[in-house]
Amino acid sequence: MIGVNVQSMVFGNMGATSATGVAFSRNPANGDNKFYGEWLINAQGEDVVAGIRTPNPLNEATKTDHNKHLESLEKAMPEVYAELDGIRKRLEDHFHDMQDIEFTIQDKHLYMLQCRIGKRTGIAALQMAMDMLDEGMIDEKTAVMRVSPVQLDEILHPILDPASEKKAAVIAKGLPASPGGAVGTIVFTSEAAMAAAAQKKPVILIREETSPEDIEGMRASAGILTTRGGMTSHAALVARGWGKCCIVGCEAMKIDFEHKTVSFEGNNGVYKEGDWLSLNGAKGAVYAAKIDTMDASENPLFIRFMSIVDKYRRLGIRTNADTPEDAQRAVSFGAEGIGLFRIEHMFYGKNSETPLAKLRKMIMCETEEERVAALAELEPFIKASVKATLKIMDGKPVVFRLLDPPLHEFVPKSEDKRAELAKDLGISVDEVDKRGESLHEVNPMMGHRGVRLHVTYPLIAETQYRAIFTATAELKAEGLNPKPEIMIPVTVSARELEFQKSHCEKIRLEVEAQTRQAIDYHFGTMIEIPRAALTADRMARTAEFFSFGTNDLTQMTFGFSRDDVGTFMGDYLGNKILDADPFQTIDVKGVGKLVEYGITAGRSKRQGLMCGVCGEHGGDPDSINFFNKIGLDYVSCSPFRVPIARLAAAQAAIKQND
Amino acid sequence: MIGVNVQSMVFGNMGATSATGVAFSRNPANGDNKFYGEWLINAQGEDVVAGIRTPNPLNEATKTDHNKHLESLEKAMPEVYAELDGIRKRLEDHFHDMQDIEFTIQDKHLYMLQCRIGKRTGIAALQMAMDMLDEGMIDEKTAVMRVSPVQLDEILHPILDPASEKKAAVIAKGLPASPGGAVGTIVFTSEAAMAAAAQKKPVILIREETSPEDIEGMRASAGILTTRGGMTSHAALVARGWGKCCIVGCEAMKIDFEHKTVSFEGNNGVYKEGDWLSLNGAKGAVYAAKIDTMDASENPLFIRFMSIVDKYRRLGIRTNADTPEDAQRAVSFGAEGIGLFRIEHMFYGKNSETPLAKLRKMIMCETEEERVAALAELEPFIKASVKATLKIMDGKPVVFRLLDPPLHEFVPKSEDKRAELAKDLGISVDEVDKRGESLHEVNPMMGHRGVRLHVTYPLIAETQYRAIFTATAELKAEGLNPKPEIMIPVTVSARELEFQKSHCEKIRLEVEAQTRQAIDYHFGTMIEIPRAALTADRMARTAEFFSFGTNDLTQMTFGFSRDDVGTFMGDYLGNKILDADPFQTIDVKGVGKLVEYGITAGRSKRQGLMCGVCGEHGGDPDSINFFNKIGLDYVSCSPFRVPIARLAAAQAAIKQND
Repeated sequence: MIGVNVQSMVFGNMGATSATGVAFSRNPANGDNKFYGEWLINAQGEDVVAGIRTPNPLNEATKTDHNKHLESLEKAMPEVYAELDGIRKRLEDHFHDMQDIEFTIQDKHLYMLQCRIGKRTGIAALQMAMDMLDEGMIDEKTAVMRVSPVQLDEILHPILDPASEKKAAVIAKGLPASPGGAVGTIVFTSEAAMAAAAQKKPVILIREETSPEDIEGMRASAGILTTRGGMTSHAALVARGWGKCCIVGCEAMKIDFEHKTVSFEGNNGVYKEGDWLSLNGAKGAVYAAKIDTMDASENPLFIRFMSIVDKYRRLGIRTNADTPEDAQRAVSFGAEGIGLFRIEHMFYGKNSETPLAKLRKMIMCETEEERVAALAELEPFIKASVKATLKIMDGKPVVFRLLDPPLHEFVPKSEDKRAELAKDLGISVDEVDKRGESLHEVNPMMGHRGVRLHVTYPLIAETQYRAIFTATAELKAEGLNPKPEIMIPVTVSARELEFQKSHCEKIRLEVEAQTRQAIDYHFGTMIEIPRAALTADRMARTAEFFSFGTNDLTQMTFGFSRDDVGTFMGDYLGNKILDADPFQTIDVKGVGKLVEYGITAGRSKRQGLMCGVCGEHGGDPDSINFFNKIGLDYVSCSPFRVPIARLAAAQAAIKQND
Repeated sequence: MIGVNVQSMVFGNMGATSATGVAFSRNPANGDNKFYGEWLINAQGEDVVAGIRTPNPLNEATKTDHNKHLESLEKAMPEVYAELDGIRKRLEDHFHDMQDIEFTIQDKHLYMLQCRIGKRTGIAALQMAMDMLDEGMIDEKTAVMRVSPVQLDEILHPILDPASEKKAAVIAKGLPASPGGAVGTIVFTSEAAMAAAAQKKPVILIREETSPEDIEGMRASAGILTTRGGMTSHAALVARGWGKCCIVGCEAMKIDFEHKTVSFEGNNGVYKEGDWLSLNGAKGAVYAAKIDTMDASENPLFIRFMSIVDKYRRLGIRTNADTPEDAQRAVSFGAEGIGLFRIEHMFYGKNSETPLAKLRKMIMCETEEERVAALAELEPFIKASVKATLKIMDGKPVVFRLLDPPLHEFVPKSEDKRAELAKDLGISVDEVDKRGESLHEVNPMMGHRGVRLHVTYPLIAETQYRAIFTATAELKAEGLNPKPEIMIPVTVSARELEFQKSHCEKIRLEVEAQTRQAIDYHFGTMIEIPRAALTADRMARTAEFFSFGTNDLTQMTFGFSRDDVGTFMGDYLGNKILDADPFQTIDVKGVGKLVEYGITAGRSKRQGLMCGVCGEHGGDPDSINFFNKIGLDYVSCSPFRVPIARLAAAQAAIKQND
């Protein structure tokens, strides 16, 4: 205990003072355990932070290029400095945290004006938490609570240098879809982005909205900026999955694709291809400038911190990953399994050309015979993809979700692809167009997708079952321990599951007979449509696990299309009709009620039913707090969110047990 | 009591018989209280019904043109006939219903083979129920139960003549979207349908799917046949609203609009404009033939029957009507109010040209100033439409639902309309196209519609409030008793209601001040999005009534787009994954659970909260039975379904109190 409680103690107007200062008991920028601060002679506290006069450094140890020519308090008034340094230590010992201190000096007498818990950057929060733990000032639980998930996120992404950012003017704002900073020159097409990447030039990809065809261009870009879309639009989801900076729904942006220029409402500039742009993905801010970035990369402290974090969490953490690379990255971030592997992933992006051509052929053929042949050509690609990921995840569960998107999403749009497909099928391009058109849907999100496809075409499901089981058998023969879990998407009725399970079991027996390998797997379902949650008791008779797909569940529960929500979400948040974007933070009163009901109903029929979440909410701290409370078993999130989810889960558990 | 219970009594093989017959204690085709039947000498019972030999008539009174040359049993064996006629009376007295009797005669000895309750047509069911009631054979409740809703439906629609239909071959099947029969020549466009109607020629309108632009063509057609769409697609909803025969989702149909021909998979014919087609809307059957129709129109018996029906029901019956004509028709069918008046109706179909042009101007303008001006031009049209219906419904409640569809639904598609709009707005056609495109949505059903429009543009809501209140004040000044109820669509949060209510109250006070009329109204909400049901307790703080929009609630709860469900619904019903189309009959386990939860939660906060249903289910007997059970106050259905809903509600109440 210190003698006087100085927290928020204000001495009022001291009259003419000889000096005033602001100090931090440790460095708030990097966490160094060094007394850090600034002071000015003949000034008020406001003058120190106002930045009109360059303040003097507090001591010799923390002088910078900027203020090294000015006299430190340590030198100018050694006794006062020694007294202040002593108070600093007593305050920290009392509050067990870094203090932000205001002081004034009159006639060499030190007066404390105020002290409070100091704000800090992510990296500083981490450094201080670990230092204080080592100093015995705080215990492990407190250390875990000291780094917020937002701060951890900051540590994991390169960001715009705050000093440099401060000097630039924001020209437009959008939704902060994926954090971090990005700096690059403007491009308007995926092709241009890829061309620039080949020359190692950083670019910002500007689009109205992105589609699966833009994947490679998005991958090649430093950052992505779109006019439309919400927090879970295609661009947002993909970018967040990669940990890439992205701003969506920047409605002020007007693109002129013809002249390759872009302008922003409320700003007079017209920017052309090649002009520099900087994005702050955490704020959704766009700058027409080349701003410096900072790379706060991973360090041993982070790894030690995370190992402490893991001691306190109850929730398992899995990842959403569709490639061996993503799986590997997620494991390195601490993922304990894959909660969502999307079979369709192999039809998008890199190396997708050949399997996509086969898929298109399968979609467009008309007879059962043609479909069987096309699926036989497709199967090896699925098997190879499944096998590679099961191998990386050896011994850890991998949830394979059956083909989910409506088929028309794969119908080629470009003329040459349509011509190629026509040739492949031996029909006219007109016929290709006609068949493609017949797949058109008014509301594709509520259309012929997910399990509905597999009810109509059981052969498509069987091909996937066979690919998964064959891959599993081959890995077992190689002495590995694959743990496949099969998940049915878009389920609305227990009978859909029974229908699929019977086909799945048939294929398992066939593959077991062919390979002479016993195959263990779990069979489960997404709960992503309200009716699935409402009938969860029936679902649990067949399903061995539930994975709550809270993206779609939010869409259906709100009737909010995540692709279209950008047009009104701003008005909803602005008018305080919604407190938060429900695609970012789980809506406890509606969607959360369905999740809770689903868990309870499911476990009433199957004790210990494994329940996870694989929507975007799986990486959101507030949502994780809720999921921990209602008894979910795990959350699954994109690889870059895994450490954040681990931290949020630990903090949720600590808060719950408090 | 008769001496022997002959129900299902079979005497076995009688050896060589001298005669066999089948008789009905009353005429099953028209309900006449005349003994009716057929018999054959030297034959088995099967021969009588097989139709190979023309059977003899039972008696002189029921001879037809077809069999008048053959000897009746009454003439051939008067004693046997008299004995049979006596048994007929004893059986009816015992079973209190019309009997289907099989008998055989050997050496002039009559043997009864079997008897059971006889099947009958709708008109016969009505006739018999009323006759038996008058005869004292049954009580009122029994009479009410004797006519099934399907039979009542039959009475209310002209149908294909069953005899003529039997001779024709079904060339394709689709979903039975709206019952009744239609016969006409093929047309492929609304224009052709209207041209034919001008010449009083009946036509069948064939489309891939219909849109609001087809309204007048649909109205002009005898029947509608579409390739796509489910039971609640645009075509189905509109046709059912009018009581017009319609088949949708006829996927076997291939239309060649260029050559104006149509063909059907599994049928070799190619049919061109002008060829005859017949539709059985109750079965979903398509015939390439001109089949006779029967008109079983309304009769005094029906009116008397319905007055008895009304004594036993608890549920109120309202109608979905948007025009004075529909309202008038519904009242004549017994509607007690309007449960759904769609403001947007005035922008479709007849006389919509001018208000639609004003609406388009309002949608496409860019500044607040332009919007205020455009809305001012629009308001008188809304007021006139509202006023006309309130006047017809004097003293009865009318629920006005605010503008519901996404705005892009009103963006003109034809070139001349776009040019007209451009001129009207003083902008280029390119600019019109650009603004129109910016309204495009990926999933419009879950997009910027309903209350979301009114959150973004409160002025649009205020215009509607002002129109409704001004109309109300004017009618009050004329000495009438208008009862407006204002309903907010697509609500997901109680705060949307509070937001709207405050605007609504502001306008009410303004109109009261201007007109010096006190305005009474009720303010309520649709419950048509799962979250609205899940948060119904909060909703009920502001809402004075709930109307469950079970069409949309079914869409969101299942994630089934009603426009796209046609592609897989057949597979779901065929594989018994669903027992019934949930758009036709309420899904008790999922959607029904939400409705029940919504009622309970709502009434927990507002005692006696008025709860109705205004989806298609409001006219479906099985659904009405459920709605009665869970304590809804009323159902609202299309005018032609009103009598069916009255009957179903009475039967539900009788069953519940049994």
